Amino acid sequence: VVFNKADLRAPAANEIERLDRGGIPRVMVSAAAGTGILDLREALLRLAPADFFDNRRLVSDLVPPGEVAVLVVPIDKEAPKGRLILPQVMAIRDLLDGESMALVTQERELRNALTRLARPPALVVTDSQAFLKVAADVPRDVPMTSFSILMARFQGDLTEQVRGTLGIERLKGGDRVLIAETCTHHPIGEDIGRVKIPRWLTQYVGARLEFEHTQGRDFPGDLSPYALVVHCGNCTGNRREMMSRLHRARAAGVPLTNYGLTIAYSLGIFERALAPFPAALETFRGARV
Amino acid sequence: VVFNKADLRAPAANEIERLDRGGIPRVMVSAAAGTGILDLREALLRLAPADFFDNRRLVSDLVPPGEVAVLVVPIDKEAPKGRLILPQVMAIRDLLDGESMALVTQERELRNALTRLARPPALVVTDSQAFLKVAADVPRDVPMTSFSILMARFQGDLTEQVRGTLGIERLKGGDRVLIAETCTHHPIGEDIGRVKIPRWLTQYVGARLEFEHTQGRDFPGDLSPYALVVHCGNCTGNRREMMSRLHRARAAGVPLTNYGLTIAYSLGIFERALAPFPAALETFRGARV
Repeated sequence: VVFNKADLRAPAANEIERLDRGGIPRVMVSAAAGTGILDLREALLRLAPADFFDNRRLVSDLVPPGEVAVLVVPIDKEAPKGRLILPQVMAIRDLLDGESMALVTQERELRNALTRLARPPALVVTDSQAFLKVAADVPRDVPMTSFSILMARFQGDLTEQVRGTLGIERLKGGDRVLIAETCTHHPIGEDIGRVKIPRWLTQYVGARLEFEHTQGRDFPGDLSPYALVVHCGNCTGNRREMMSRLHRARAAGVPLTNYGLTIAYSLGIFERALAPFPAALETFRGARV
Repeated sequence: VVFNKADLRAPAANEIERLDRGGIPRVMVSAAAGTGILDLREALLRLAPADFFDNRRLVSDLVPPGEVAVLVVPIDKEAPKGRLILPQVMAIRDLLDGESMALVTQERELRNALTRLARPPALVVTDSQAFLKVAADVPRDVPMTSFSILMARFQGDLTEQVRGTLGIERLKGGDRVLIAETCTHHPIGEDIGRVKIPRWLTQYVGARLEFEHTQGRDFPGDLSPYALVVHCGNCTGNRREMMSRLHRARAAGVPLTNYGLTIAYSLGIFERALAPFPAALETFRGARV
């Protein structure tokens, strides 16, 4: 139950008691004073039917039936032995569900893979770590993005995270950056969250930044100390939790971006990586003006 | 320790006691009487280093670097939502490890997939359930096999299981057939082990057979009541356990075959499905004469 005009009058005590007894959530809102809107959003998120979060397509809406998407999967030390990681499996399966096809290749074989196709693919999706090499190897007229950006759209809110990416422009020396990951993998070698993103981001900003990391369900209650949150694709989490984190970042006034978006931005290929998503690209161009 | 000439003389009691105290396995063998050989094999299997079982390639040795394998993945009711099954993931990953590529498609799109390639693939691998349609759609000069046959080679002993497949020829009405599966999925709809294989096998033999099923670690201690064992690809098990089951079937004189081999045989495309494996094909041709 939403009580509006909360600035004028509080609801009766017995009314509140009745709702609480029935386990019915209540929110006080004042349109005039502009209070309670964030609480209302959070309550709506909690109550939204599962379909609102689950019934979305990861990539197949970008690849017409019968067409081919090329998926670039680097095999590095962090790749699980004999397996693929979840966003890769999810993308292949979603393409099959959409009656389209996936040509899966390592980044070293990408040029060769493109020559093996009788006509260009409808889309190239790369692991964000190989973004720069892939951008160089894919013809300009072939749409290109990353698994992590697809996941931002699927498991979060791409437009809002694109807006969050612009927070990189406002970073200055000494700022604290939170790198948040939903899974709890043990970082080794050139870990993307621990080593690569801090390195690319520092190079782009040209000043020393303080990096902190969280994993799994850990996520700070108070985001205000951070100048930026860089979130993973959330492949092992659910969309409800991700929307709640986005909501908390918005409430704290802290921009929240994504692994793939941050890498594309730092490497100067942001607009190209967003080309498959016209609404998000529009937001970026509008916000930058 | 192996004691040979067990027909002539038993080892001293204090010798046996010393080995047992040290936890050292012992086997009595008689080359002259031909006894104990199976026990010796079983003991060797138990002692073999993990590398003997793990250091094999699933498919990439059949696809040269830079070449393409087409993987046919039907999406039916038993396909896990949003995911691929393990042999499919393992095959894609193994191809990437071998610097080759995977074009993944549903069976309905296979003809189209082949036209999208600038030149024919080095191999087509299909889910065994789509064998007949795939055999019709793939040109005769393109090698073709199934995930399950690749798994027989990777997780078992292809040549021995090819020999076991010939047991189908000796089946007669009323024979008991054991269908053994390593994973513990809940069978629904047109389950391959519960519905499709019994149907195809019955059609081929042309007589009523008795089917029994085991799952997971369940596997009968005594296989002698069965005329045939049809085993799954064992993707969730390990090779050591599969070799031990093969060994027990051999000891009981019961032929043990595999899902993909049985389907290919029942559908009359056995030689074609074995063409990528010349040694196994040779065994089949030799055994049939």
